[in-house]
Amino acid sequence: MQYTKPFQKAEYDRRIAQTKQSMADKGFDLIICQDPANMNWLTGFDGWSFYTPQAVLLHLEEDAPIWFGRPQDAKAAHITTDIPPENITTFSETLIHHPTEHPYDDLATLIDQRGWGSQQIGVELDAHYYTARAHAHLVKGLPNATLADTEQLVNWERLVKSEAELVYMREAGETVSAVMNRAIAKVAPGVPEYEIIAEVYHAQVMGVDGRYGNYSSLCPLIQVGEGTSTPHLTWSEHPLPDDTLVMMELGGARHHYQAPLTRTLYLGSPPAEVTKLTETIVEGVDAALEIARPGATCEEVEAVWQKVLNRNGYHKESRVGYSIGVNYPPDWGERTASLRPGDATVLQSGMCFHFQSGVWLEAIGAAVSEPFVVTESGGERLCSAPRELIVIN
Amino acid sequence: MQYTKPFQKAEYDRRIAQTKQSMADKGFDLIICQDPANMNWLTGFDGWSFYTPQAVLLHLEEDAPIWFGRPQDAKAAHITTDIPPENITTFSETLIHHPTEHPYDDLATLIDQRGWGSQQIGVELDAHYYTARAHAHLVKGLPNATLADTEQLVNWERLVKSEAELVYMREAGETVSAVMNRAIAKVAPGVPEYEIIAEVYHAQVMGVDGRYGNYSSLCPLIQVGEGTSTPHLTWSEHPLPDDTLVMMELGGARHHYQAPLTRTLYLGSPPAEVTKLTETIVEGVDAALEIARPGATCEEVEAVWQKVLNRNGYHKESRVGYSIGVNYPPDWGERTASLRPGDATVLQSGMCFHFQSGVWLEAIGAAVSEPFVVTESGGERLCSAPRELIVIN
Repeated sequence: MQYTKPFQKAEYDRRIAQTKQSMADKGFDLIICQDPANMNWLTGFDGWSFYTPQAVLLHLEEDAPIWFGRPQDAKAAHITTDIPPENITTFSETLIHHPTEHPYDDLATLIDQRGWGSQQIGVELDAHYYTARAHAHLVKGLPNATLADTEQLVNWERLVKSEAELVYMREAGETVSAVMNRAIAKVAPGVPEYEIIAEVYHAQVMGVDGRYGNYSSLCPLIQVGEGTSTPHLTWSEHPLPDDTLVMMELGGARHHYQAPLTRTLYLGSPPAEVTKLTETIVEGVDAALEIARPGATCEEVEAVWQKVLNRNGYHKESRVGYSIGVNYPPDWGERTASLRPGDATVLQSGMCFHFQSGVWLEAIGAAVSEPFVVTESGGERLCSAPRELIVIN
Repeated sequence: MQYTKPFQKAEYDRRIAQTKQSMADKGFDLIICQDPANMNWLTGFDGWSFYTPQAVLLHLEEDAPIWFGRPQDAKAAHITTDIPPENITTFSETLIHHPTEHPYDDLATLIDQRGWGSQQIGVELDAHYYTARAHAHLVKGLPNATLADTEQLVNWERLVKSEAELVYMREAGETVSAVMNRAIAKVAPGVPEYEIIAEVYHAQVMGVDGRYGNYSSLCPLIQVGEGTSTPHLTWSEHPLPDDTLVMMELGGARHHYQAPLTRTLYLGSPPAEVTKLTETIVEGVDAALEIARPGATCEEVEAVWQKVLNRNGYHKESRVGYSIGVNYPPDWGERTASLRPGDATVLQSGMCFHFQSGVWLEAIGAAVSEPFVVTESGGERLCSAPRELIVIN
């Protein structure tokens, strides 16, 4: 089996040491991570098995993490991680979709047998695949433990990217630039939406110069005409009209590091209102990225953007950006720092954000987003796709 | 906005009436469905917004369902469903990723204001996106309600497909046949795995003759050599070797109805062991599908398959099939009936299964799976891809 691990063991050792420090600070003896991005970031574990209960456990007194999952996926843990074999553990296959028992019954037993049954245990209470039922079985199985929400402890540790991670973030940006350019080249009146999306998927996996892509955390999104007023509709069989607004939000992923990108297109002659809005957005992004340096806060970056909007008669209600990095479906946001009022997170070199500059008015909307990395000289764009209203005539 | 609903309103009305009957039987006044497949099946709601808290509510005394979600996704509910506007409700945007509050605080308020705060309420305790934290906020916000697990109530209602649904299941089968054939045509020594997957994604979306495809609930899976011993690894940059076993599990989706398909290929001259195992699998599938008629039970179908295996010196531990239909990432199984010992579910016309006939031995594995629909004359295959060990020389 040929499998090339994306990082050296030292990188994972550093992440684990850093996370343990944070656990100690917050009073956790043990954390249970079910978020697939946290599992991957801590150990390298990779595979489309997150539809089934599984977790990575990290204990302050245990050198290596513990992988816990379905028997058929244990081999994937052996192949994709450096976890010692004795720490790769499985639940009984009969617990899959069992009416009264649950794989987390076995997890509770494992924790108890290790002597950790009365300790301070952190769980990812709001992680996508950590279901209410899994939690109930853990609570019941560990009556003497103190279970508390980690409050995205590992997600926060992921916020500043290492140089090794930034290599993949930049490659993801390179991929999504190629993806967007291929999509733009395909857009024309009469072309069914799905034909554009087929090209997008092909380009996402092909990557650039052999640097292939993984599946993106979100499917490609395309909105046409009135559909631009809601962001998460997916493609249909309808051909693009002659005179219409089109928005596309596409992703590129390299070793699961995600770069999202949004562009706005106009088929035909754009109304002056669309042109003005797009120009304002580009100006706002430029101004915000200029000050996105170490020491600035998330809300300061947002304020610079909002000021440009306001001066031009616009306003954006929702946050204008969020932290990005390694991720799995269904989301590419890290659920930590956001570029919005009230977020006083201080920027550091190596943080990455998706500056999602969508502005939706009554009848029209536009977005020209930028994934970027914080550097001493401001926000470094990860993408090279054209930064303007793209007019297809 | 051009959006063509995949079903008539009467189809949803029937599903809702049938589900209410089951709710009444089980003593629920209200159910809260967060599973995106259940939300779609009950109302037609569609969009990649399941990474955020959202739900469809069904109350015994209320004619129409209630959609509850993020403000920016409400428009998608207006476009994709027949839910009356007054039943499309949203939570406050400030609750997104809020450290102490949660969108389900607003859901509890809504339920209370409707006068349902002391009733019997069913929640999908083990649905992928129903997090432990969402549940905790609901429990806290509805102190007088009786909250209980629906135990996949709606999933069970989805088990028998209507004629209208079977049209899409067959189209999904047609798509995945085309997808598999295109993948097989691309497989050759020296071809990097990702180049095959890029073709797969393109074919999945293009569908057949304009019947375009949606995103599949699982990403395309390819395993090579030793990697065939674990099922959920994803593609890499490595070129296919000269003499090796390859397994692919691919999906086709039509209006989110899912048809999965697995095939085994050998590059070079297959060892006699691989040929014998594959021939046994095909014989076992044929025998099992022959008896997959109304009246037979799930475990009887499994027993016929297992008997063929045993006669040839093999055994399969895990279940050999599971119910399929409409679904969303991360899984295409319906989490209800399984073809395994102990499952006494009686087959009815219109039930659909993925007969996942993978057998993994010490060093090798093989699978020649079949998605099928139960009919009076046995299991009708949804796919036309070659049913044999595919040898690439």
